[in-house]
Amino acid sequence: MSLLVVGTVAFDAIETPFGKTDKIVGGAASYISLAASYFYRNIHLVSVVGDDFPQTFLNTLTGVGVDLQGLQIKKGEKSFFWAGKYHNDLNSRDTLETQLNVLATFDPVVPDNCKAPDFLMLGNLTPEVQQKVIKQLTAKPKLIVLDTMNFWMDIAMDELKKTIAMIDVLTINDSEARQLSGEYSLVKAAQKILKMGPKTLVIKKGEHGALLFNKDEVFFAPALPLEDVYDPTGAGDSFAGGFIGYLAKTKDISFENMKRAIIFGSAMASFTVEKFGTERLIGLTQKDVDERVQEFIDLVQFDISLV
Amino acid sequence: MSLLVVGTVAFDAIETPFGKTDKIVGGAASYISLAASYFYRNIHLVSVVGDDFPQTFLNTLTGVGVDLQGLQIKKGEKSFFWAGKYHNDLNSRDTLETQLNVLATFDPVVPDNCKAPDFLMLGNLTPEVQQKVIKQLTAKPKLIVLDTMNFWMDIAMDELKKTIAMIDVLTINDSEARQLSGEYSLVKAAQKILKMGPKTLVIKKGEHGALLFNKDEVFFAPALPLEDVYDPTGAGDSFAGGFIGYLAKTKDISFENMKRAIIFGSAMASFTVEKFGTERLIGLTQKDVDERVQEFIDLVQFDISLV
Repeated sequence: MSLLVVGTVAFDAIETPFGKTDKIVGGAASYISLAASYFYRNIHLVSVVGDDFPQTFLNTLTGVGVDLQGLQIKKGEKSFFWAGKYHNDLNSRDTLETQLNVLATFDPVVPDNCKAPDFLMLGNLTPEVQQKVIKQLTAKPKLIVLDTMNFWMDIAMDELKKTIAMIDVLTINDSEARQLSGEYSLVKAAQKILKMGPKTLVIKKGEHGALLFNKDEVFFAPALPLEDVYDPTGAGDSFAGGFIGYLAKTKDISFENMKRAIIFGSAMASFTVEKFGTERLIGLTQKDVDERVQEFIDLVQFDISLV
Repeated sequence: MSLLVVGTVAFDAIETPFGKTDKIVGGAASYISLAASYFYRNIHLVSVVGDDFPQTFLNTLTGVGVDLQGLQIKKGEKSFFWAGKYHNDLNSRDTLETQLNVLATFDPVVPDNCKAPDFLMLGNLTPEVQQKVIKQLTAKPKLIVLDTMNFWMDIAMDELKKTIAMIDVLTINDSEARQLSGEYSLVKAAQKILKMGPKTLVIKKGEHGALLFNKDEVFFAPALPLEDVYDPTGAGDSFAGGFIGYLAKTKDISFENMKRAIIFGSAMASFTVEKFGTERLIGLTQKDVDERVQEFIDLVQFDISLV
């Protein structure tokens, strides 16, 4: 059994109402791998960085069982960099700067030792790059989960739809679900999107939780009401990492088990937002994770017996 | 045992992306009474209308067990009228017209037969009028629930805070909780508001569900993802009506039972928004209500055992 994670490993500079960071480590695949590592330890990473990227963080990844054979380190080049500023409500943000750097020419190469992963997590990237990864696989994974964003709907909708047709689970946020489907009602949006290929759709609503849809069923997972949210960056990726990590651990892709996976994903996201960057996702104990999941259980548990 | 409901009985004219109504029956107390009547049948109403108000709707209320002795019908005067237009997302609206009419001089008189109710639901009204009702009671109710809105925070915050100090459960929406407390985090907002008097706070988040707080606990109830939402008017009042109706029926004001009450309240709100005005709240069967509540149970039910 193995889990292949593809996505950015990069630098972010983040400003929120609660503070400001210099260049810190970020990137979808960083958050996904860290979050997944709490559930599953046979993770292979495919990504690209420049030689400006800190070895210490790469050591952190290998330390939690992430195989970096598929990580290209480009000599003399710079890592992808994004700078953004969140508005007061933390639900919207402005991009201040984007330097594609190594990402501009990223050609993913899946190493031989992970060409037949059981689980594939495609973090947000050009739909074309996501497709290239799928095409290198020698066997169909048990489950392909894909995350994407409105940016690709704006500039590469056709290519994105081709990619979406190749996967099993799509994770997007509520406004992206509306954009992709042209429907305002999330129930109608989900029905349309499920006809585009994926058997399962996760709609992320940030502080308002997440919805899980298949053709016949729907499940809602709350977000934990937190006293302080410092930095929403990476919350969606941490959610995806916890989700697929739990599925890989349990080897069960039924709707019932995906419900559990969403709760574990939500728990990982709730940690991430408590500090800037990836800081909070490093060094959590099993007890920390269990206690957090218990908070989710307590939050929504009620007992009604209809006679 | 009895439940006293105070609030407007009025006319609305509503425009949503899905259509437009002429003058139809609305008002907080109309929605509250109808929703509560599915759980509890000893309801007394205190309100005011003009002689332009349709007797047919009053018959509907008496038909579901609402005592109208406390309803003042002002000869030669007109009922309160509100006209509003919802934006495309249905989460915000503009007031097009407000005619206070009989409400301008409303002096509530609690009839002798309900001066000692076990449950009191104060629907949205001037804080002063809400206080006047409490002061006419001859015994302290088991539970006083109060609904209010940002309008009173803008123009009568001091009076509102005095009223809030006299009650047990406050129901407001998320932006009102932020305005009342001056805190953005809903967890912090709740802690501050619970120091103002109420032992329990319900924060309504519309399509994003509702949060229930006391000093030590928190519970989250989802909203049902609906295919079509025609008209959000009255959703909060229907929620409050289902909530207090269920509490009155079960005579149990523990936090555990309030969780159940919030689910029943959410179910009633989910009916209301499916049609314009009060239409959907009239003539539901026990089976309709049970099936809807079952949908809430199915929506959030998951099974995680932490070892």
